[in-house]
Amino acid sequence: MTFSTRINKAIARTGSVTCVGLDPRKAQLPAPLRDSLADQSPQAWAQAYAQFCCEIIDVVQDIVPCVKPQAAFFEQLGPAGMVALGDVIAHAANAGLIVITDGKRNDIGSTATAYADAYLGSAAGIAAAGGDPATASPWGGDALTVSPYLGRDSIEPFVDVCDRRAAGVFVLVKTSNPGGGFLQDLRCGEQTVYQTVADLVTSLNQERLDADGYGPIGAVVGATYPEQLVELRAAMPHSILLVPGFGAQGGAADDVRAALDESGRGAVINSSRGIIFAHARAEFSQQYGDAKWQDAVRAATEEMNAQLKK
Amino acid sequence: MTFSTRINKAIARTGSVTCVGLDPRKAQLPAPLRDSLADQSPQAWAQAYAQFCCEIIDVVQDIVPCVKPQAAFFEQLGPAGMVALGDVIAHAANAGLIVITDGKRNDIGSTATAYADAYLGSAAGIAAAGGDPATASPWGGDALTVSPYLGRDSIEPFVDVCDRRAAGVFVLVKTSNPGGGFLQDLRCGEQTVYQTVADLVTSLNQERLDADGYGPIGAVVGATYPEQLVELRAAMPHSILLVPGFGAQGGAADDVRAALDESGRGAVINSSRGIIFAHARAEFSQQYGDAKWQDAVRAATEEMNAQLKK
Repeated sequence: MTFSTRINKAIARTGSVTCVGLDPRKAQLPAPLRDSLADQSPQAWAQAYAQFCCEIIDVVQDIVPCVKPQAAFFEQLGPAGMVALGDVIAHAANAGLIVITDGKRNDIGSTATAYADAYLGSAAGIAAAGGDPATASPWGGDALTVSPYLGRDSIEPFVDVCDRRAAGVFVLVKTSNPGGGFLQDLRCGEQTVYQTVADLVTSLNQERLDADGYGPIGAVVGATYPEQLVELRAAMPHSILLVPGFGAQGGAADDVRAALDESGRGAVINSSRGIIFAHARAEFSQQYGDAKWQDAVRAATEEMNAQLKK
Repeated sequence: MTFSTRINKAIARTGSVTCVGLDPRKAQLPAPLRDSLADQSPQAWAQAYAQFCCEIIDVVQDIVPCVKPQAAFFEQLGPAGMVALGDVIAHAANAGLIVITDGKRNDIGSTATAYADAYLGSAAGIAAAGGDPATASPWGGDALTVSPYLGRDSIEPFVDVCDRRAAGVFVLVKTSNPGGGFLQDLRCGEQTVYQTVADLVTSLNQERLDADGYGPIGAVVGATYPEQLVELRAAMPHSILLVPGFGAQGGAADDVRAALDESGRGAVINSSRGIIFAHARAEFSQQYGDAKWQDAVRAATEEMNAQLKK
């Protein structure tokens, strides 16, 4: 079973297209975790980040198909943070979740291969494809976000590893930030830069389609640009879309449903802050607050699932 | 003293513009290191990578201004590799070298800030600027390579941290790989994508110039495109250029000297394989071989210094 088949099956099984973004931030951790810190060392914070993310995983594991740990916040703690990232990925994979590591990595040729080898392929995904789970990547996730600035020959090494380890990548096509258009919207002859990247993604998927017509090369398309989301869903019919920008960044449920195919699959919609820091949101803080932050996470996840099902 | 001043002073002090790329790869480590592995675990390899890189640092620290650890090869070993990366950066900084972490990181807004906070600012650099060395970043390097695909508002958070910690970034403008032109060379109206990025770099430096006219926002321009190197030196007069692709990738000394300013500063030329695996090069393997690999590293570094001085 390929990555695309596996994520679509997980969507069908859970009845959810919600991807929970694991973006731990010191200032916003629930009070019980901040209060239990042994000291202010990176090691202590890394342990708090790991506990925070692992508890979120425990709370959402039966109601969402996947989680997306954001590498930057773990890297911000130095090496100790990266050890915590490894623990979080392992915990999510053991819970049966698909893990998309958000690292926006890339480099030239053989260095891109090193990143692919590092992050692509979980034991569960490889086993589901009939391979040897012992060949899983050292980080053990299923997919990685990848930047396209270095061109086609920087994406191909990732595709090779996807083929070998039943893994996936999500290429940045149209990002959710206000200034994303600076390069992405430049019009070069017939089409924009983001359309050029979308065409590359579609061409790389072409010979790798599963029974539902999906391939291993997904794409990141922000919820904050609804018109382009419709356009890019059509331009990349073989890609699982990873849609950030829902909730806290302003993307609405009506807009992001355009990312899904007719059977309600083919995309996952990410929310980070809106779910993981739900204890601080007006609608949940009264009922749950910091003390019951895990219940707030569950409630916010169920709320998002319901919004996207309407 | 800002990052740009500091790197230009290091160039003047060492009489070298060579940047030694620390790209450890299992298959090419010298035999003594491979033979001394306790086992094949990531921990054992990580220890070998750290020893390899730290010995290289010891060998070159008085004859080059900077080193560039490539994060991908450390990440390839999983969390243990990242612990080794931290050790290598610390060892290089303690040896008085400027450290450029090659991670090609980026993300939107506050996530970009997390990457900047993670990697930008060494104790030595901050102290040289009159700041508190205790505010150094957790990884402790001086500069980071950064991808521009997410646009201007994804670069600005890095610039903010550069200002606060006397650090630098190197924005990918024109990369050294054969397929780099796929996006970078697209012509959008009056100019190409890479020229648009170059203009952004120049505009961000504008209000941050040191006494020699250099700012904290450097640029990556590959040695493998000599004509563009001349063009981009002129288009980014305030940027320290980081020039990969010399040696093993095909860039020649006559070509890369175009990256330097009239006083022979303003750029560093990176060589990775040609220096760190010099023991396996035809011209050094007879004399040094695996047993004296450190001497081969020294000889190859001196050879490169001499080639670039001609």
